[in-house]
Amino acid sequence: MKANDPTLKSWVEVPANSDFPIQNIPFGIGFREDGAPRVVSRIGDMVIDLRALWILGYLENLPFVMEDFDSKTLNKMMEKGKEGTRELRNRLSTLFSLDNDDLSKKEHHIPQILLSIDEVTMLMPVKIGDYTDFYSSEQHAYNVGCMFRDPDNALLPNWKHIPVGYHGRASSIVVSGTDFHRPKGQQKIEEDQPPVFGPCRLFDFELEMGFITYQGKPMGDSISTAEADDFIFGMCLFNDWSARDMQKWEYVPLGPFLAKSFASHVSPWIVTLDALEPFRVSGPVQDPKVLPYLEYSGDKHIDINLEVSITPENGQEKIVSNSNYRHMYWNMNQQLAHHASNGCNINAGDLMASGTISGPEEGMYGSMLEISWKGTKPVQMPDGSERKFIADNDTVTMRGFSEKDGVRVGFGEVTAKLLQAK
Amino acid sequence: MKANDPTLKSWVEVPANSDFPIQNIPFGIGFREDGAPRVVSRIGDMVIDLRALWILGYLENLPFVMEDFDSKTLNKMMEKGKEGTRELRNRLSTLFSLDNDDLSKKEHHIPQILLSIDEVTMLMPVKIGDYTDFYSSEQHAYNVGCMFRDPDNALLPNWKHIPVGYHGRASSIVVSGTDFHRPKGQQKIEEDQPPVFGPCRLFDFELEMGFITYQGKPMGDSISTAEADDFIFGMCLFNDWSARDMQKWEYVPLGPFLAKSFASHVSPWIVTLDALEPFRVSGPVQDPKVLPYLEYSGDKHIDINLEVSITPENGQEKIVSNSNYRHMYWNMNQQLAHHASNGCNINAGDLMASGTISGPEEGMYGSMLEISWKGTKPVQMPDGSERKFIADNDTVTMRGFSEKDGVRVGFGEVTAKLLQAK
Repeated sequence: MKANDPTLKSWVEVPANSDFPIQNIPFGIGFREDGAPRVVSRIGDMVIDLRALWILGYLENLPFVMEDFDSKTLNKMMEKGKEGTRELRNRLSTLFSLDNDDLSKKEHHIPQILLSIDEVTMLMPVKIGDYTDFYSSEQHAYNVGCMFRDPDNALLPNWKHIPVGYHGRASSIVVSGTDFHRPKGQQKIEEDQPPVFGPCRLFDFELEMGFITYQGKPMGDSISTAEADDFIFGMCLFNDWSARDMQKWEYVPLGPFLAKSFASHVSPWIVTLDALEPFRVSGPVQDPKVLPYLEYSGDKHIDINLEVSITPENGQEKIVSNSNYRHMYWNMNQQLAHHASNGCNINAGDLMASGTISGPEEGMYGSMLEISWKGTKPVQMPDGSERKFIADNDTVTMRGFSEKDGVRVGFGEVTAKLLQAK
Repeated sequence: MKANDPTLKSWVEVPANSDFPIQNIPFGIGFREDGAPRVVSRIGDMVIDLRALWILGYLENLPFVMEDFDSKTLNKMMEKGKEGTRELRNRLSTLFSLDNDDLSKKEHHIPQILLSIDEVTMLMPVKIGDYTDFYSSEQHAYNVGCMFRDPDNALLPNWKHIPVGYHGRASSIVVSGTDFHRPKGQQKIEEDQPPVFGPCRLFDFELEMGFITYQGKPMGDSISTAEADDFIFGMCLFNDWSARDMQKWEYVPLGPFLAKSFASHVSPWIVTLDALEPFRVSGPVQDPKVLPYLEYSGDKHIDINLEVSITPENGQEKIVSNSNYRHMYWNMNQQLAHHASNGCNINAGDLMASGTISGPEEGMYGSMLEISWKGTKPVQMPDGSERKFIADNDTVTMRGFSEKDGVRVGFGEVTAKLLQAK
């Protein structure tokens, strides 16, 4: 794919270590004070207004109408399917590459099309239909099993047979930068006392990646692991905030509910699966052998460096985790094939998240529960304070990027500040 | 409320034992071959076209525009909130009552407004945003606990403190009459053998009622039990199909997933909470005492007679359950208050279901799992065959109605035929 050629350069300046070289071309929804929300892309620190590109005729002979870009969500655009959005990314790559002057020579068009990132507010990119959260990092499942069950039988019997997942709440998924309140809920603090209701005491993040789907097949049909790539539009960073004390009391037997449904945050830029192809890597050997519908061929894991930091109010940022998306046991193809194996229909704009991504060593864990090992190993903060979990007014930031052959394709960040309980 | 007056009569004929007297005035989406989907109501066997009513001027001075009725979902109409839909129901009640001739005297208008139910296909009434399933019938939780755990500790420790619930899949909720296929999935048939993948062997229904919400408060805010009525539009019958073998293998620790997400069915008519007010009854004494945010006052349970039948292909219908919605332990006000207690935002068109409604005696259970007691007590069918669970080509039908003072307000039915696995 020419758009992924590592030698490609853009006539738009790209700062060193930017997540957004011309090899990325992510999609999002941007809003400028004097305009309406619309579909945008990004190179370096410049935002590309796709509605303006369409009006000025640069998106001709593509399967889109203006309403696809003059929209407050990416859903209409995604409804055109993989072929459409792939052609669109290729067109943007061509228009902004150094060896093409169709646009770069039209100096009066450029200010209508390119905006500085500082002028643009990024909004929630997708109207999410259904949201599913998987539980696909072996180290995370192992760590949780060790803490709450038995280190010798840390993984439950189904874990290596099923990409375990559950349905989550879509309405409260919000974009990076949206402040939110510490949730309240029931907790059983003393084993022999009745539960109490109040602000969560053990408030945690979960480092995850999400993928956004295209329209799938009709209800009743399944999707194979080989077909799965055709139904995945792109990926984002995902913070699956978790109220550990509420979760512990409520989750047996039907799973997490209010411990998660108060808020989750996504990064504003959806990086296409096409842009991530160069960073594919092989996954772990899966033993025991998976059932045929979960078998796959080729490299379906992706090398994405991930980090998490905590920044106290007016304080200094502290990196608390360095993980990588390649540490997943189950890949997206397996997750999607499993999800559709019972005939469940997938829509354009569904979000499926990885589950907490923990690497195999300390320092690579994706939640405070694991990092502080249930509060027994507090994190030392630069200001001398300690964190077992997340404190009021802390800002938690997750960043992620892939890098190879001198090209870095990244996601920017998902960041949010926890306000005190309302 | 005058619209609930039991002495009210309509100039539209209402057959004996109809679920749809003038005291009902439910809402749905209807489609006639020569038209487009639109909002409809019903009296007796006649469907009322609300778009036609609007065009002919009968809905003036109400807070609606034509697009609210010229729609393939009820969502736009519901976005007007309780006050708007209440005024609308009152207007319909007035227009169709025997003591008002504003419409009945305009003979040339009537054929544009009233259609025979036989001419109309009822569609999915609501675009469901998020779907939540509760687990609020004590007898059901007790029965399941007896079968799979310990009769002496059948209820889990959290059950009487929390209206336990979990998120479900919204995309595969379809309207009554939509045939569907037996799902395939992983099952662990022999304890000491690996799981297999294939058609579900233990296929079940769950008799439930659902309620549809109005737009709630902003994220971060809660809803009290006293406020809950203002955020509930109406109710429907709900069949939460369940693949018991798939559920057993997958559900620990994160809850039911593919055992439910292949399909669920709703009845096409949403009966407003206003229409159900006359049938309110008191609920059970809740002991232990619930936490203050779950306390409520007044009668918040509802007396709704429910039945379930199985009809084999070309066979005779067999009633397998007679239950009642009054048997719930937790009521809707408590469910909604709990759901929003952590700040989770509720949208117009969310669906919240009761969980299986089992009454206190045999014959009142709401699933085949309980009726056949895990397959140990098969149901005898009129054709001599037996049912432990649901067989291919069986049609399962659920019906429900309230009755008091000679007035019967009902839901019609939710029915669907299980086709063989694809």
